[in-house]
Amino acid sequence: MSEIITPRLPSGFNELLPDDQRVFDVLIEKITREYESFGYSHLETTALELTEILQAKGGDSTDKEMYSFTKGTTDLSLHYDLTVPLARFIAEHESQLTFPFKRYQIQKVWRAEKPQKGRYREFYQCDIDVIGKPTVGMDAEVVAVTINALNSAGVFPVVVHIAHRKVLQEMILGIGVTQDFSAIIKCVDKLEKIGVAGVEKMLSEISLNSDQIRRVIEFASHKGTGTEVIAALADYKISPPVLDELCEISDLLSSYGVLDQVVFDMSITRGLEYYTGFVFETNIVGHEDVGSIASGGRYDNLCGYYSKSAYAGTGFSIGLSRLFSVCSDQIKSKLLPESSLVVVVALADTFYQEALKVAQTLREKGMVVEVLHDIKSMRDQLSYANAKGASRVVIIGEDEVAVNKVTLKDMKTGAQEMVEVINV
Amino acid sequence: MSEIITPRLPSGFNELLPDDQRVFDVLIEKITREYESFGYSHLETTALELTEILQAKGGDSTDKEMYSFTKGTTDLSLHYDLTVPLARFIAEHESQLTFPFKRYQIQKVWRAEKPQKGRYREFYQCDIDVIGKPTVGMDAEVVAVTINALNSAGVFPVVVHIAHRKVLQEMILGIGVTQDFSAIIKCVDKLEKIGVAGVEKMLSEISLNSDQIRRVIEFASHKGTGTEVIAALADYKISPPVLDELCEISDLLSSYGVLDQVVFDMSITRGLEYYTGFVFETNIVGHEDVGSIASGGRYDNLCGYYSKSAYAGTGFSIGLSRLFSVCSDQIKSKLLPESSLVVVVALADTFYQEALKVAQTLREKGMVVEVLHDIKSMRDQLSYANAKGASRVVIIGEDEVAVNKVTLKDMKTGAQEMVEVINV
Repeated sequence: MSEIITPRLPSGFNELLPDDQRVFDVLIEKITREYESFGYSHLETTALELTEILQAKGGDSTDKEMYSFTKGTTDLSLHYDLTVPLARFIAEHESQLTFPFKRYQIQKVWRAEKPQKGRYREFYQCDIDVIGKPTVGMDAEVVAVTINALNSAGVFPVVVHIAHRKVLQEMILGIGVTQDFSAIIKCVDKLEKIGVAGVEKMLSEISLNSDQIRRVIEFASHKGTGTEVIAALADYKISPPVLDELCEISDLLSSYGVLDQVVFDMSITRGLEYYTGFVFETNIVGHEDVGSIASGGRYDNLCGYYSKSAYAGTGFSIGLSRLFSVCSDQIKSKLLPESSLVVVVALADTFYQEALKVAQTLREKGMVVEVLHDIKSMRDQLSYANAKGASRVVIIGEDEVAVNKVTLKDMKTGAQEMVEVINV
Repeated sequence: MSEIITPRLPSGFNELLPDDQRVFDVLIEKITREYESFGYSHLETTALELTEILQAKGGDSTDKEMYSFTKGTTDLSLHYDLTVPLARFIAEHESQLTFPFKRYQIQKVWRAEKPQKGRYREFYQCDIDVIGKPTVGMDAEVVAVTINALNSAGVFPVVVHIAHRKVLQEMILGIGVTQDFSAIIKCVDKLEKIGVAGVEKMLSEISLNSDQIRRVIEFASHKGTGTEVIAALADYKISPPVLDELCEISDLLSSYGVLDQVVFDMSITRGLEYYTGFVFETNIVGHEDVGSIASGGRYDNLCGYYSKSAYAGTGFSIGLSRLFSVCSDQIKSKLLPESSLVVVVALADTFYQEALKVAQTLREKGMVVEVLHDIKSMRDQLSYANAKGASRVVIIGEDEVAVNKVTLKDMKTGAQEMVEVINV
């Protein structure tokens, strides 16, 4: 063999060892079950897309972060989110889908960002979106589903922070700000990261006067229940239809039984340009420092780059790899399923085939069963069973075969008894 | 909005609509359950790897088919199989794994091949491998697991064709062939594709004499049960230990209860160079023309490019996307789970919140429930329920609220009755 190449992953990439993978799978299963219980259909789009499709949105930092290349004469890229592929999919198949179209998508995405703790370059997102005639009911649903999904993991309390782009927009028009709205959004969005002084500086750099800056900062400090925030907003010139939407989502979230995990928080804006109504972020209580682990919002024109039809919708995306990397220890201790593995131990080569048959019978009863193929001492086989976390072993030797039974040993208590295979 | 970009996938790429995706998911679930019942651990490796790692094997057509590119100063590639990543993973984590290491991996791989029916450039493979001290028991196990997995889909009978590289090797040495063994393998491997005359031509091109060619073709025609083939091999100079392996695997597959789905077939060689013992291919009965839908074999040095430790093992890989594309209609008719969707219909806006509460109660009972957020006529809502294949609808209106019940309508029979929510 030629020289050894050091086995390693590219920088910023990550994999799980088998025990962690089991926990990760349980997490995905719980989230999936919740998405499906609300009637969302599973969609999986290709990882590679035409670069032209993914770049349609154009501009900003996305291009730099995309893994793009040319193969033959085709420009290809790995998708960097699941929203643009959804837009392309809907435009491509609009006549084949039932609307409102509700889909969930749990896939890896790729972004060549600077790696940090909990942020990888290849990572999982769990997205749900409802596409159809826009109603506040849709917005409330994606919030309720996402809270239920995170609760079903059952390892930490989460709080969803809700704001509304139109509230912010009417507020800034009300105080005479004429600057580009998306610039204001980007400033307020930085509040948590860079603090009040930093945002004041940013706002002054785009020429807001000091009174306007004071009012924007004051506005962004409003946080509380729907009732509290709506009361506080009386000081600003917000139109009744927009205020009504805040009331309505609060009422609906109460019907879903999740209102106690929601806070209306006017500092939330989401950096992305395509949101046009409600915006959502989610914190883990006690781990606010890691930032939002699930975010989303309402958009009015999802497929504009690919179709003349107008599709509005609401979506919510859980950053699964990030969530897992932050909370993996808590998740592990609470979610790791008790091992149900049974190892069948043949006491000599002559009992190996009998062991295979017993194992197959137990599998047909729904059990997870292993047989070691390289029959060594009982001690070696028990040590393997231990290393794999087996709950029980089934031992087959001369005594057992003589009476057509097996010895069942509990790996926790050490207790053992001879039983018929059917009673294992 | 600027000009419309035609929504489309790159050539050779494929996605499933929601109904097909459901079937595909059920298929994956069934295969996964079978893999897990034999104690295989789930592994998921990154899609992107360092090109240096994936190219270690070097040579042949693999490089041309890889999606490779440079990002910054790093050469990256999408993995084109799940075996090379497994080798890298084991070499990287050898001290953290329990051996024999048994893992399953169900992931997409990417190959820039010429697309054909059932062959895509981004597609799923389901791989199992056992890595440890090599025994025939390991080989028998991966065959049994794969047959069980394909049977559990329950839609078509499959037959695994088994051969042994060493049998072929001893046979050709026995007839005085001194040409490169891998060249012979590549010729015999083409039998099904190009027929006897084609292979005869290939063999004569690498200078086998006509008697040798006749004997190779004759050898490759042996096909049948273990007993039959072992009897036929008496004409060739095959050593007893190698013949014993054929006997042994036949006995073991009988213990697993799958011998009736196995045929010993000396024409099977597998093109790949790394196999050193048994090789396997799998046909769907009645669909032999699509070729092997699951293949594998024994290898003696998995991690040689990445580690000085010698790891032997046996693996079997199901070409899931290909299998699905060939049999999707049969699979669909047999596997598509009966829809359990319930749509809750509010007869007017005023009952919408009540509908949300009822839906949430039913979900807590484990049901899949949707509520339309844009409350239109009952007719419109029933038509949505129909389009989504709902089995039942729950109707809430004035009459129902008055007696604190709901109307339950069976979508198949049309029968309806008023019941308490708890009895839905």
